[in-house]
Amino acid sequence: MTEILYQHGTLALLVPGLLTGTISMQSLLQHGDTGIGTGEGLDGELIILDGQPYQINGQGQIQTVAKTFTMPFADIHWAHYQPLGTLQNLTSTQLYQHLTHQIQAPNVFYSVKIQGQFQQLKTRSVNRSEPPYATLTQAAQAQHVFQAPQATGTLLSYYAPQLFHGAAVAGYHSHFLAADHSIGGHVLDFSLVSGQVEFQIFDTLQQHFPIDNSDYMQHDFAADELDHAIRKAES
Amino acid sequence: MTEILYQHGTLALLVPGLLTGTISMQSLLQHGDTGIGTGEGLDGELIILDGQPYQINGQGQIQTVAKTFTMPFADIHWAHYQPLGTLQNLTSTQLYQHLTHQIQAPNVFYSVKIQGQFQQLKTRSVNRSEPPYATLTQAAQAQHVFQAPQATGTLLSYYAPQLFHGAAVAGYHSHFLAADHSIGGHVLDFSLVSGQVEFQIFDTLQQHFPIDNSDYMQHDFAADELDHAIRKAES
Repeated sequence: MTEILYQHGTLALLVPGLLTGTISMQSLLQHGDTGIGTGEGLDGELIILDGQPYQINGQGQIQTVAKTFTMPFADIHWAHYQPLGTLQNLTSTQLYQHLTHQIQAPNVFYSVKIQGQFQQLKTRSVNRSEPPYATLTQAAQAQHVFQAPQATGTLLSYYAPQLFHGAAVAGYHSHFLAADHSIGGHVLDFSLVSGQVEFQIFDTLQQHFPIDNSDYMQHDFAADELDHAIRKAES
Repeated sequence: MTEILYQHGTLALLVPGLLTGTISMQSLLQHGDTGIGTGEGLDGELIILDGQPYQINGQGQIQTVAKTFTMPFADIHWAHYQPLGTLQNLTSTQLYQHLTHQIQAPNVFYSVKIQGQFQQLKTRSVNRSEPPYATLTQAAQAQHVFQAPQATGTLLSYYAPQLFHGAAVAGYHSHFLAADHSIGGHVLDFSLVSGQVEFQIFDTLQQHFPIDNSDYMQHDFAADELDHAIRKAES
């Protein structure tokens, strides 16, 4: 069975601010029911669960996303998760180390989904910028951070191998949505109180490029400090 | 229209000698009619033209490839080339510079196919190694180089963006097959006398990983000097 992670755009194109929306939510949802992304102009953080896309905007408000909403970058796949069991009382660092050790698949892409109770949750989101777009470093400096001492909800994470750092974020890249929609966004930190953990290994990365976007096609990435900017903005 | 480059394995897995054949030619040919690759244990250089796979073995002999032949690494796609015109009297460096300038797509994968007359053609191929497999650097040191003052045939090249160096070879990666099967292999150098040039831009890289190969799944790539080894062996 082929398990495909579909990625539109690359993390690298966010770095110099190539933030035009180059895929619609309607098109993206043809490739899966579970995913993450960001809107045109870094218009918030996105999470797709059970086929339903949500946006956590720059003010932290959570809303469903229209089919016409466009994105410069997104990951999506069809959920076929395998249970990994219940995990309790772990910091985010301990959890990621535990997952790496249990899943034993450092050289392929995989996803982890955790439904449960979290503490000291810290997320971020970004306000939409207009052209000329902000660079990723500029946008990250203007990010809004949201915190919750307690939250029940879903953490959706994608793991990428080191070899693909730049195309994706090497290691884990996680978004969160609270069950009551009180908090969500790109995950900066948390402790896991107790959660049902599932994982899904992909044998295929379907990397889609925005070939109709002339800014992307003509950009000279040589001058961008990709590694530094991505690590600074995404962790 | 979706134009897909299907890649099985990564260049990076060749570096430490993860050379087990993890896809059969029969399976590979389900993803295209035009491609390049290498056999298990670096068993020669492969070129697929019009659906017909050829192996240039370590002795330079050219033969068709059985459906059961397996490979650790291969690129393949369905040919839908666009004409770029006739080019004449260019060194390989001049040709690649010209292609880069004409095609203007540095940030996506594309293929170039040239049918024509070549001079000072220099190719290489490698003898199959048995487990424990040689590293890419060791194999490259034991490569056999073939030369032809004149050759008529097909040069098939894949361009990869810098961001994907390691997964593929950044820049152009070319294989050759003479029309009379007198010479072929991984291309080290040439001059183009006159050739019909075609190109095909891919909007999608379908990167397939050998998830059933435990050596690949468990390998620690951190110790491999990927960039150095790939540049040394592939150029």
